[in-house]
Amino acid sequence: MAEARAASGRGAGSDQGSGGVFITLEGIDGTGKSTQARLLAERLRAFGRDVVLTREPGGAPGAEEIRRLLVEGEPGRWSSETETLLFTAARRDHLERVIAPGLARGAVVICDRFADSTRAYQGLAGGSGRDFVDRLHALAIGIEPDLTLILELAPDTALARASSRSDASAGPREDRFERKGADFQSRLAAAFRDIAAAAPERCHLIDANAAPDEVAARIWARVERLAGAMAP
Amino acid sequence: MAEARAASGRGAGSDQGSGGVFITLEGIDGTGKSTQARLLAERLRAFGRDVVLTREPGGAPGAEEIRRLLVEGEPGRWSSETETLLFTAARRDHLERVIAPGLARGAVVICDRFADSTRAYQGLAGGSGRDFVDRLHALAIGIEPDLTLILELAPDTALARASSRSDASAGPREDRFERKGADFQSRLAAAFRDIAAAAPERCHLIDANAAPDEVAARIWARVERLAGAMAP
Repeated sequence: MAEARAASGRGAGSDQGSGGVFITLEGIDGTGKSTQARLLAERLRAFGRDVVLTREPGGAPGAEEIRRLLVEGEPGRWSSETETLLFTAARRDHLERVIAPGLARGAVVICDRFADSTRAYQGLAGGSGRDFVDRLHALAIGIEPDLTLILELAPDTALARASSRSDASAGPREDRFERKGADFQSRLAAAFRDIAAAAPERCHLIDANAAPDEVAARIWARVERLAGAMAP
Repeated sequence: MAEARAASGRGAGSDQGSGGVFITLEGIDGTGKSTQARLLAERLRAFGRDVVLTREPGGAPGAEEIRRLLVEGEPGRWSSETETLLFTAARRDHLERVIAPGLARGAVVICDRFADSTRAYQGLAGGSGRDFVDRLHALAIGIEPDLTLILELAPDTALARASSRSDASAGPREDRFERKGADFQSRLAAAFRDIAAAAPERCHLIDANAAPDEVAARIWARVERLAGAMAP
């Protein structure tokens, strides 16, 4: 946690303790992040690790209420800057109430999407300056994950998967971003690759064009290299 | 508008045009801000001015949705930092959709609460560093009013007024801040006086311990000195 601790700046209401490991999964919709986050949590628990499995936007009761403002409604509902502020408010709540306490007690915290999604969606694809996203993150969040796994899949394949999932859902349609279309997804995928290239120590691209068990094995190979992630 | 235009930084999706005047009313709950904002709007309209009368938190459809997250629920629902992020998200939306377009077309924009409320409530009274509030404002909002009228009333008198208004309301109780008590209101009143002392060109204290028409006359005396506020 040295990197995250050093980067935490203002902190989040909690010191990050010894032994905590912060892992995030990123990528465009439909690449299998949620499934892989769950499989990774199961495998780490089988080793006796305390695991916190969470997601963004949301992940805490207040943050989930903010999430609803973000994922429902029309694509042009918020400007890119307002959207970035709302994502950061939700992230701050999630960090204070779930992520930082989990790390402080030594858990592995696995988060389905985190700050790289804001960097990709708002910073590159949504029109807001990446500088705005980065300055807001430095001011209000500060922490970076120990390991970020970026799942890669051809945008048309990913979009087809995400669409079939949305159609099968009984809840309100959380597809405000998906409806922005295939070209938007392609730009997003490129944005995630740029983020990975700029932080090669932290970020690793994972080819997600395979059966879930095979993708899980590729992810596990990366997690195994992370000192402290496996030992209880 | 020179000061506001120069301070606008990233802008808010609109150039501020010639002739617009931005006036805010501030102070603790129960000092009569909403009444005075309405009386001032009426008087300026009688002079033929185009007036936009608005309020924070809220003031635009999206910002009103964020307002609901802020004014309802328990006092400890959000940390001071998350609260500041949410207020700033609502303010950005309000600025882009109501304030900046109003100023751009040359209107007098009268706003019941603006950034000074965040400085007082979150920066001084709520525990978050004033530095956090100021850096977030500089990054995401930028604009300052041309004139800020800070209404002053003894905190116990103001609290009694605010409480009787809440009791009479048929809607959900928007009293999450009022319930913090009289000591909190006293610290807030001091915070508003500090803000006024630090920006004497922009901020003016108004004694609100009088009948509404008398307070309106005191406010008008200040507004008359503001070049451009009266002429259509």
